[in-house]
Amino acid sequence: MRIEVNCSRSYPIIIEKGCLQQAQKYIDGQRRIMIITDDMVPASYRQILQEQFPHCDVKIVEHGEKAKSLAVYEDCLAALLQLNYSRKDIVIALGGGVVGDLAGFVAATYKRGITFINIPTTTLSQIDSSIGGKVAINMLDIKNCVGAFYQPSLVLIDPLVLQTLSKRHYHNGLVEAIKAGLIYDPALFAMFEQDDLDIEKVIYRSLLVKKAVVEQDERENGIRKILNFGHTFGHAYESYYHLHDYYHGECVALGMMTVLQDLDIKKRLAAILQKMDIPIMCDADKEKIFALLATDKKADHEMIDLIEVTKIGQAKIVNLPLAQLRAYL
Amino acid sequence: MRIEVNCSRSYPIIIEKGCLQQAQKYIDGQRRIMIITDDMVPASYRQILQEQFPHCDVKIVEHGEKAKSLAVYEDCLAALLQLNYSRKDIVIALGGGVVGDLAGFVAATYKRGITFINIPTTTLSQIDSSIGGKVAINMLDIKNCVGAFYQPSLVLIDPLVLQTLSKRHYHNGLVEAIKAGLIYDPALFAMFEQDDLDIEKVIYRSLLVKKAVVEQDERENGIRKILNFGHTFGHAYESYYHLHDYYHGECVALGMMTVLQDLDIKKRLAAILQKMDIPIMCDADKEKIFALLATDKKADHEMIDLIEVTKIGQAKIVNLPLAQLRAYL
Repeated sequence: MRIEVNCSRSYPIIIEKGCLQQAQKYIDGQRRIMIITDDMVPASYRQILQEQFPHCDVKIVEHGEKAKSLAVYEDCLAALLQLNYSRKDIVIALGGGVVGDLAGFVAATYKRGITFINIPTTTLSQIDSSIGGKVAINMLDIKNCVGAFYQPSLVLIDPLVLQTLSKRHYHNGLVEAIKAGLIYDPALFAMFEQDDLDIEKVIYRSLLVKKAVVEQDERENGIRKILNFGHTFGHAYESYYHLHDYYHGECVALGMMTVLQDLDIKKRLAAILQKMDIPIMCDADKEKIFALLATDKKADHEMIDLIEVTKIGQAKIVNLPLAQLRAYL
Repeated sequence: MRIEVNCSRSYPIIIEKGCLQQAQKYIDGQRRIMIITDDMVPASYRQILQEQFPHCDVKIVEHGEKAKSLAVYEDCLAALLQLNYSRKDIVIALGGGVVGDLAGFVAATYKRGITFINIPTTTLSQIDSSIGGKVAINMLDIKNCVGAFYQPSLVLIDPLVLQTLSKRHYHNGLVEAIKAGLIYDPALFAMFEQDDLDIEKVIYRSLLVKKAVVEQDERENGIRKILNFGHTFGHAYESYYHLHDYYHGECVALGMMTVLQDLDIKKRLAAILQKMDIPIMCDADKEKIFALLATDKKADHEMIDLIEVTKIGQAKIVNLPLAQLRAYL
């Protein structure tokens, strides 16, 4: 399957079992290639690429959110500089959302932007973060506060690589698909209420939602904000737990449960989440969560855009005084 | 005078004596404003802004190329984060090219891009670097190797602020205007062969050249490269002398003298430069200059785009093996 994303720069997404083995078909082997990956991504995946691009370079960063630091960013840039990479060479992200965000920001800013190819290896990144062009690192404990909008030239999604994920990681990523259903695609949401899940279909439909939204509003001045459903509180939960106790998707799930007001939708969502052992409530200190909301990069002085879902498949943006968010907690 | 630049994002340039005093007319005082400036910019200029925007914040960095470091970049981002600046707030660069590059890259990446206003205070930045959207910092002694294409929302050019520049700095910036004439505008070049120089006209015509070129090719995939005339060797001279002995414009002058093959044009250029006490030759070690050329970010493996002027007002891009550059030295 193939999706064409039409933004400031257009690019294809290939969704195909086994396409990692076929990377050569899609990537110009004449260029120099730097693969940025982390120490949790199975070595066999990068070896599959190394066999196809024997001259490529590999940069392995430590796994987890701490790789999205200015220090690791600098380290990656230095590697490219020392190897004298040109503007026409390629940076490949091979890994989850963290690697994509980091490598994407490196590619966005190295010599003012070089070719960026994303090969996501987690459900989370295949379903959501690998497309849309948001790349970023963290600073002073604030998530994604330094970054850019920078579109990849190609996204290669091989659902076979998901087989090595733990069940928890696998489910964690599905939360973004559930979110996509809730805000835009009732049929996608309904797929999670069935017994069997066709993961390729879930990825495909989720990306179609993201494509539709991002194409309308690449730089998040308007409708793109609906993709943040569950993320306003979700990011606060992430900061609160430092991603130790809960993963990103799990925090978004908590965030959606926090913000949902319609009891019927909330019940249906809770049932789906529980089936996948995803938490639906947590013990976070409410005052601390509220304080973290105020530092959200989407907060504008004392106002914040909150995304609400009042009917499955329909989201709306509500601009609220920050103080009103306390009532949700 | 007003120039409208039409790129991915369009913005006005105001060229007007005294417009610094009128900044309020152009800048939304309702937003928070961070002025990034350096310790060489006369304090009175930022005070003129502070009187108009009493609530603004000011970040003063050390002057000179060393401000374009990752450490200073981080420092500026941290200041914005700690003050909780939102995406709709404003970063103003008040200073020369260094401040514009640094503040522009901060604005380009803070929360994935906030409003950027450039108020250049040197001939160099008024004539050249404040428009076009190139922002960057340096790493590992390589100039502008980390950056972005990010357009300002407004450029405010007040020729009165040039009065406090030393003669050498004033002339240094004029080199980019001479370059603009050489590559695109014979009448602009001819102005330098007259006795009196109307600086407002020089700025205006230079910016028209830059506008014409940048609008055709914002991201420097083709014709925009002609703006680099003199810069290939110029950047190598800069790295060689670490900008101690020669300023940027002076290095570009040396670079133009190095690359010019037409003896008549070379003679006319030399006469103009000498009138302004700008060096036309230097004692740099040729082998070291050649080695520095190979690390230029415009070099692509063993090839480099060199800009040549064979007739005043006309430039062409020649793609050469790096090795051939030795012959110019």
